[in-house]
Amino acid sequence: MNMAQLFEKKKQGKELTQAEIQYFVEGYTTGAIPDYQASSLLMAIRLLGMTYDETFYLTKAMIESGDVIDLTSIEGFKIDKHSTGGVGDKVTLIVTPIIAALDIPVAKFSGKGLGITGGTIDKLESIRGLKTELSSQEFIDNVNKHKIAVAGQTGNLVPADKKLYALRDVTGTVDSIPLIAASIMSKKIASGADGIVLDVKCGSGAFMKTEEEAQVLADTMTAIGEKLGRKVVAHISDMDNPLGKMIGNKLEVVEAFALLSGRMDETHEDLLEECIIISSLMYQVAAGVNESEATAAVKRVLENGSAAAKFEEFIVAQGGDLADIVQNDTANKVAIKAPTEGTVGTINALLIGEASVGLGAGRLTKESELDYDAGIQLIAKKGDHVRADETIAYLYSNRQIDQETIEKVLKAYTIA
Amino acid sequence: MNMAQLFEKKKQGKELTQAEIQYFVEGYTTGAIPDYQASSLLMAIRLLGMTYDETFYLTKAMIESGDVIDLTSIEGFKIDKHSTGGVGDKVTLIVTPIIAALDIPVAKFSGKGLGITGGTIDKLESIRGLKTELSSQEFIDNVNKHKIAVAGQTGNLVPADKKLYALRDVTGTVDSIPLIAASIMSKKIASGADGIVLDVKCGSGAFMKTEEEAQVLADTMTAIGEKLGRKVVAHISDMDNPLGKMIGNKLEVVEAFALLSGRMDETHEDLLEECIIISSLMYQVAAGVNESEATAAVKRVLENGSAAAKFEEFIVAQGGDLADIVQNDTANKVAIKAPTEGTVGTINALLIGEASVGLGAGRLTKESELDYDAGIQLIAKKGDHVRADETIAYLYSNRQIDQETIEKVLKAYTIA
Repeated sequence: MNMAQLFEKKKQGKELTQAEIQYFVEGYTTGAIPDYQASSLLMAIRLLGMTYDETFYLTKAMIESGDVIDLTSIEGFKIDKHSTGGVGDKVTLIVTPIIAALDIPVAKFSGKGLGITGGTIDKLESIRGLKTELSSQEFIDNVNKHKIAVAGQTGNLVPADKKLYALRDVTGTVDSIPLIAASIMSKKIASGADGIVLDVKCGSGAFMKTEEEAQVLADTMTAIGEKLGRKVVAHISDMDNPLGKMIGNKLEVVEAFALLSGRMDETHEDLLEECIIISSLMYQVAAGVNESEATAAVKRVLENGSAAAKFEEFIVAQGGDLADIVQNDTANKVAIKAPTEGTVGTINALLIGEASVGLGAGRLTKESELDYDAGIQLIAKKGDHVRADETIAYLYSNRQIDQETIEKVLKAYTIA
Repeated sequence: MNMAQLFEKKKQGKELTQAEIQYFVEGYTTGAIPDYQASSLLMAIRLLGMTYDETFYLTKAMIESGDVIDLTSIEGFKIDKHSTGGVGDKVTLIVTPIIAALDIPVAKFSGKGLGITGGTIDKLESIRGLKTELSSQEFIDNVNKHKIAVAGQTGNLVPADKKLYALRDVTGTVDSIPLIAASIMSKKIASGADGIVLDVKCGSGAFMKTEEEAQVLADTMTAIGEKLGRKVVAHISDMDNPLGKMIGNKLEVVEAFALLSGRMDETHEDLLEECIIISSLMYQVAAGVNESEATAAVKRVLENGSAAAKFEEFIVAQGGDLADIVQNDTANKVAIKAPTEGTVGTINALLIGEASVGLGAGRLTKESELDYDAGIQLIAKKGDHVRADETIAYLYSNRQIDQETIEKVLKAYTIA
C-alpha cells in the first residue's frame, strides 16, 4: 500500500477502505508518512468529504494510535460531555457538579482553549492552587470519592489527533465535518466514558455556521459513538450570541458559581436554560430516566444547594482555593456605552470572542500567555432596552486595552 | 498576506489574485512556505481547478522564479516544439533536423524521461560520445553554425517548476490541467524561443485520456503563450497506440535515422505522418508560410536527403559517434508470438510503456539506471494481419526479462 493509491482513489471519488485509512493514520503518527502527503490527503478530504464508513474507520484508527483510558475501576455509568466550543461557554463548569450531585460519576478530560474558543482547563487553572494534572490514580480516586474529576488530556491519548490537528491548523483543513467528528469522537471514546452528551454549537461564534451543518456533525458523531458501543446524545445550540454575561477565564468561573448558587442577577437566563438542557440530557443517558424526571432532578439539586456544594467540594478536592473565586480588579477597565437608545439585537459572538482574545483572555497561538482576569462583562444582552450612553459592557485587562478591541465590542452590538 | 488567506479563498471558490499567486510561488521557491502548505494548496487546485487568469499568473510567477534564456544573439525566428509525452515518441529527433535543414534555427532544451514517458535527452545520450550539457556559448554557437542544438535544461531555469513538480509527483497532484499547462509553458517561455509548436497527446499512453481534456490543455497553453508574446500552435495526436515501431532509447534513435533516410521498412507510416504534421506546423509558425507550402518544403528535405544529412551534422556537432547509431545486441531477447490468427487492433500504449520500463528503457523513479539498448520492437502494428505463432514483437534487455513484462506486451495486443 502507498499514498499514491490513496490519492488516486480519493480523487476518483472512491471510498477508502479500513485498511487504507489505518495505513494513513498509523503512518502519519509514526512519521513514516510525511506532512506534505498528509496535508494533500486532508485537503482532498476537506473538499470531497468522507462517507460515514470512512469517518468511522478514521475515528477508530485515531483511537488505536495511542492509549485508551480504562475507567472500569470507577463504579457506575460514567458520563462525559463535549461542546464544539463557543464564546462564554462555561457550561461544563456548571453541569458537571450538577450531575455529580445526582450521584452520577463524572470523569472528564478537557482541553485548553485556542482562538475564540475557551477551554475548561484554562478556566479551572485561573483558580489559585487548582491542579488539573492528575495521575490516573488521583483521577480515579477523586471520581470514586467525590463523583467528579476534571483533568487535562494526558500524554499519549490519541497522538494521531495531536499531530493531525496541528497540521490541519496550518493547511486550511480545520473546517471539515468528518475531520472534526473524528477528532472529537476519538478523544471522547479514548477517554473511557460510557455515555457522551454532545453540545454542538452553531452560529457566528462557532465552527458550524448553519444549523444544517451542525445537524450533520451531530448525526455523524452520534452514529460513530453508538457504533463504538457508547450511548451518545447530541444537542444543537445557538452560538450567534455569547452565552451568559461573562467572557474570560476567571470571570466565567465566577459566573458559573453564581448560577449554581442561584444568584441570577450575576448571570443570564440563556446560560441557565442551556445548562438545564445539557445536564438533563446527561442524566437521562446515565440514569435511564425520561426528560421530565431528569429535568426535575436537575432543578432540585440547583435549588437545594447541593450542586453548588458539589462545585465547592470538587474545587477543594483538586487543590483550588475557594476564596479565589472572586472577580479581581484589573489594571485596565473600559466601559462601553450605548451609542444610541434602543433594543439590543444579536450580539455578534465572533467579534466578542475576538475582542476577548485581544484582551488576553484567549490564545492567538498555542504559545500565547493568558491573562486569567481579563475578559468582557456583557451588561446588556439581546432583548434589553438601553438608553444612549448607558454602559452596555465592561472590558477588563491587565494589558493596555487598544482601540481595535473597543471597536470590535461596539460593532458586535446591534441596537435598533 | 499568508497561506491561510489563500486556503480560505480557494475553498470558497474565489479567484486568487496575481499578488497571491506570486506570493505562493516565490514563497515556495525560496522555502518560506513549507511543503505541507504547498501540497495542500496544490490538491485544492487539482480538485477545484484554476481560472484562465490564475493559470496565466501561475505561469508568469514560475518563469520569474529563475533565469530566462536570452536567444537574441541567434539570428532569425527561433522555433521550439514540445510533446506532452508518449510511448515511442521520437518526433523531436526527426523534426528538429527537418526544420534546421529548412534553415530555421532550432534552439531546443529537453528533459529526461520519467515513467512510461521517454525523454529526448536520454535518447540522445544513448549515442556514444554525445554531449547534451552545453555551455550557453556552445549552445548558441551550435545553433548559429548548424541551425540546431538540443541541450538538457540548465541549473536555474524555472526553479519553481523543479520544486513544484517534485512535490506534485508524491502528493497526487500531477494530473491537473492548469498545473501541467503552467509547468510546460513556464519552461518553454523561459527557454527563449519565439514560437512553440505543442504536440498534445491523448489516449491510454498519455496524461490526457480523452480528446476533450487534451483540447482544454492545448487551448490553455496556447492562450498563455500568446499572452506572453509567443507564437503558439497546438496539435492533438493519438496516443492510444505507440508511435512507430521502436520503444527504447537507442532503438528510437535508430528508427529516427532510418525514417530520415527514407528506409520506411524500418519504421511505420504513423510516425512519418506525425512528423510531417509537426514539422509543417513548425515551419508555418517560423516562416509564415501556409500549410501546403510548409508540407511541400518538409517533404522536399526528407526526399533530397538534406534532413538526414542535418541529423548527422547535429550528432557530430554535439560529439556523437555516427557509427554508434546501430541496434546493439542485448544479453536477452524474447520473441512475442501471436496467440491466434487475426487482425491487430489497438496496441495499448500504456501497457507497452510499462513493459519498456520493466525492460530498463524507462525510469521508475528519478534515480533509476537506464539500459540504453533495452526496449520493444513492434513487428506487427494496428491493422496488420498475423498468423498464429507469428512473431509480433521483440523484447530486448541486458537485464533478465520477467514473465510480467512478457504478459504486459501480450495483453497490449488485441487480435481479432
